[in-house]
Order: sequence, then structure tokens, then C-alpha cells
Amino acid sequence: MKLGIDIGGTKTAAVVLGSDGTLSDQVRMPTGFGPEEVVGTALRTVARMSELAGLEPGGFESIGIGVPGAVDAGTGRVEHAVNLGVAGLDLGPRLADRLGVAVRVENDVKAAALGADHLLHGAGTRDASMAYLNLGTGLAAGIVQGGRLLRGSRGIAGEIGHIPVDPHGLECPCGQRGCLETVASGSAIARAWPSTDPLPARELFLAADAGDGAAIEVRDRFVGGVAAAVRLLVLTVDVDEVVIGGGLAALGEPLLGGTRRILEGWAAGSAFLGSIDLAGRVRIIPPGFPAAAVGAALVGGIAWPKS
Amino acid sequence: MKLGIDIGGTKTAAVVLGSDGTLSDQVRMPTGFGPEEVVGTALRTVARMSELAGLEPGGFESIGIGVPGAVDAGTGRVEHAVNLGVAGLDLGPRLADRLGVAVRVENDVKAAALGADHLLHGAGTRDASMAYLNLGTGLAAGIVQGGRLLRGSRGIAGEIGHIPVDPHGLECPCGQRGCLETVASGSAIARAWPSTDPLPARELFLAADAGDGAAIEVRDRFVGGVAAAVRLLVLTVDVDEVVIGGGLAALGEPLLGGTRRILEGWAAGSAFLGSIDLAGRVRIIPPGFPAAAVGAALVGGIAWPKS
Repeated sequence: MKLGIDIGGTKTAAVVLGSDGTLSDQVRMPTGFGPEEVVGTALRTVARMSELAGLEPGGFESIGIGVPGAVDAGTGRVEHAVNLGVAGLDLGPRLADRLGVAVRVENDVKAAALGADHLLHGAGTRDASMAYLNLGTGLAAGIVQGGRLLRGSRGIAGEIGHIPVDPHGLECPCGQRGCLETVASGSAIARAWPSTDPLPARELFLAADAGDGAAIEVRDRFVGGVAAAVRLLVLTVDVDEVVIGGGLAALGEPLLGGTRRILEGWAAGSAFLGSIDLAGRVRIIPPGFPAAAVGAALVGGIAWPKS
Repeated sequence: MKLGIDIGGTKTAAVVLGSDGTLSDQVRMPTGFGPEEVVGTALRTVARMSELAGLEPGGFESIGIGVPGAVDAGTGRVEHAVNLGVAGLDLGPRLADRLGVAVRVENDVKAAALGADHLLHGAGTRDASMAYLNLGTGLAAGIVQGGRLLRGSRGIAGEIGHIPVDPHGLECPCGQRGCLETVASGSAIARAWPSTDPLPARELFLAADAGDGAAIEVRDRFVGGVAAAVRLLVLTVDVDEVVIGGGLAALGEPLLGGTRRILEGWAAGSAFLGSIDLAGRVRIIPPGFPAAAVGAALVGGIAWPKS
């Protein structure tokens, strides 16, 4: 049995993946803040999951961790995980030392991409390619080709949120202007539609549905940015499918349907776009599916201790 | 010995690749117009090259053809090769029937990407990834990962020329607005800098060097578009290197240096871009290197007759 853990800014989720591909129930607990607390959260999660699985803590075949920030999958080190209060942490080696079992660490969006690929294709589709488009506070994608994660030269494959798409667009915290993330992300919605609602994007979509002109404009610009991200991923990597995930995927059908309608409109105005079926390639992750935890259980590559 | 043929709009180039990786001299001849003439050009090229190599026409181990347009590498069929006067042609099967040897067909930009990868890495670098950024009349890229061409789901991987980067940009023949190709391509220069010079881009660069304000503006917008293409490729696929090729690569150092200076300027204004060394990843194909013909000789995949 493989254990997958998704350490998020506020919650940590975990699942056990059986050797036959079955998933256990998902377990959630709060995430601690700061490096020691993150290690502690991971250890508590492992203890809890092994108890539920009837194993010793070191009894899992492997343990994979998805975590935000810049992850070096080759060393298990995490950096710049601002939401976790982690500037730098050798998470993989630290956990492996304590648990005596192989521990792999991957960026949470990349892990979620593997999890979404597993959901769509199971273990058996070596020819399929997909991109997981994570719409959270920011925007980033994970690309899976033939069941394997594309990490790229420096681990930044899929960082499409910082591709500018409008020279007159808003300033982005990255130092550029008009980045895709300034249009199609939770932070973009927060900036354009200030709200005290715990789910500002849902409030925005409801206000737009109710006919609020300003809300319609903000919503349409956001959905247009999501459609632009889909087009960019297909025209560059030509993936079979783009799966929308992340916190904003909870918007569900209004987001998926809106994105498809924009892509269909573009296809109607461009024979080239019409020939490549962008709308037909878009999916959305089912509500509640723990993509990053499932993917973390599946992450391949180097692990500690070196086996 | 493998034969590679690059059938271009006006010229056809061919090289022989020895089993030890050595290249023969390049042979060039004019390309005929229309499907029968394209087949005839290919057959004449094969006859000429086999004569030079001291082989029977069917004596090559394999024959690969790079050709513009939409190529189905799985069937050897070419469509929409406007410059060749070809609406549709079963080029692979037609040649294989006549020659009795395996014939592979690939899009010329994708073939050139393989050729550039071979030049950079030889046969032995299965971990390297690169993008070949073709600046000709249009703009497109070919992506090579671990020595293998990324074709994608429908053969459009690398079609980044039709990603819009400016909602207020120029109309593109594809039906969209502000596509990268409307900024960074030969057609973009022809539109912004009308000229009777046989090499309008070179004339433009010389006029800019001489201090012509309008030329400087057109040149800088063009080079900025090339830099944007590099950034887009790295942020999406995170290739080790981006190699500029195509007709405009003849601009040489002024194009390469100008692109690097823009990327360095962006890096100075963005810690994120500064950390990923875009300028250091850009290369330019050496003048005269027959990338598409070399790559055509290396194209893998299905061939006719099925072996």
C-alpha cells in the first residue's frame, strides 16, 4: 500500500492507494505553520493513516508528499512555500530518517496532475497526455505525458501563470505585467471583486447570474483567461485533455460550461481553432476528489533512503 | 546510410547521414509546384543522392522527408502545403511504392527540430530537451524531449505562433487577434516594414542600426516577440534550450544578441524570471546548417512499407 499526503496551506489530506489501485477514505487534518510544524503534521498524518490501515508507521511501501512551493524532486527539498511558513526544508530526508521508508516529495500541482491522470486513465494508458490546470490563489499547470510527469529542465514546466497575455494588463507580483494569473486565478477575482464571502468566486458567479453588470464583466474576463490557458496548453504541448482543478474547480459546471462556450466562440471565428477541438478537450475535476494526495502516492523518481 | 530530404517552397535540400553520424555535403535543387511535381522532385533528389553515394535508388537504409503543411506522420499524408501547391498528397506511400524502401514524412519544422537536436546533442543525450523556434514566413516551434519529437495529440504541438499575446494586437489570418506570429515572423516584418529588398528583415536591422527611428521600433517589437516566444516555451515545457532557426535565423548575432538583451531586461525586473535563466537558454542555428534535411533523415515512427 502506498500513502499519499497533500500538505496544503490550511489542511492536510491523505489517502492510501492499494496495490489494485483502490483508494481508501480520505483523511484530513489541519496543517501546522513553519518547518517543524510541517514535519510534525506529516508525521501525525502517517501515524494516523498507518493506524487506520493496520500497519506499522514504516509499513507503507512508499510515502509521497505533495507540497506547495519550489520542490526539488531529486533531493526532497522544499523552498519558498510561503503559505506553510517554510523558506527551506529538507522534507524528504527528514521524514525518511524518522520513518525508515521511501519518501518522495513533489510540488502539489504536479502531484495533482498525476492524480487527475490516474482518475482519467487509470494505470494503463501510456499514450495519453493531459494537463492539469490548477486554479487556486494562483494559476499553474502540471503536464503528464504517457503517465509520466513533465518536470522540465528546472522543475518549472507548467508555470504558465506567468506568461503575459496582455501588454496593457495588470501588474503581477512576479514583476511582469498582464500575466495569465492576473486574469484567471483566485487572486485575480479577489482583486477585481472584493468580497467578504468565504467563497468570493461563487459569490461572483451568483451575482453575474443574477444580472449584475459589473459581476458579468469580471466573471467573463476570468473565464476568458481560463479558456486562454487551455488554448495555450493545447497549442504548445497538444495534450489530449486539459483538466481544471484547484479550489476554483468547486465552481463546477458554470466554470466548465463557460470555458467551453468561450472556446466554441473562438472556434467559430477561426477555422484553425475549429479544427483542433479545444472545447472537447476540457474537463473538470470531480468535487472532493483528492487529486494531489492520490498523485503524491503515485509520484515516481528518487526517494529516501535510496533504494 | 539514411537519406534526409527537406522539400521547401522554392528549394529542396538533401543530405546523407552515415551510420557513424557523419553528414554528406548538402545538395540543393529547385522544388516543383503541385503534387505530381513534388513527388517528381523527391524522386529526382533520391536519384541524385544515391548516385553521389554510389547506391541503387532503393539502397538507402531509410528515407525521410520534411515538408511544410499538416503532415500525418502515421500515414505519410501531407495536407494544406500551400507553398507547394499541395492540398493533399499521400507522399510517403507514393514514394515507398516507387522506391521499395522505408519512407518517413514529417512536418518540416518538426524535422528541423530533430536536426537541431542532433547538432546540439548528437545521438547520446536522452535527458536533454529543446525547442526549435522556427522564424520563417510564420512562427512555429518543434519540441524534442530526450531525443524524441513531441507530436502531441493531433500533431499541433509547438504551434505557438497562434497563441494571442495582445488583445489589441493585429488581426491574424488564422482568425484571431494579436497572435505571436503577428509580431515575430517574416510576415509580421513584411507588414510593418514594406520593402523591395530580397531580405527585408536584414534591411530592417541595418536601417535600425543606422538610427532610423521607425526601423528601431519595428525591429524592437519583432525581437520582443521572439523573446516572448522563448519565455512561453520555457514556462510551459521548461526545455533546456531554445534554438532559433528558419529563414530569419540568417540575421545571426543581431537577432540572438537582441533577444538575449530583452530577456536579460525582463530578468532584471522579475526575480522569478531572473531565477530561470531565459537568456542563457537561447541559441541560434549556425548559418547554412540543413536542420530540416538532417532531421528528416532521423525521423522515427511508422514508415512505408511497414517493416
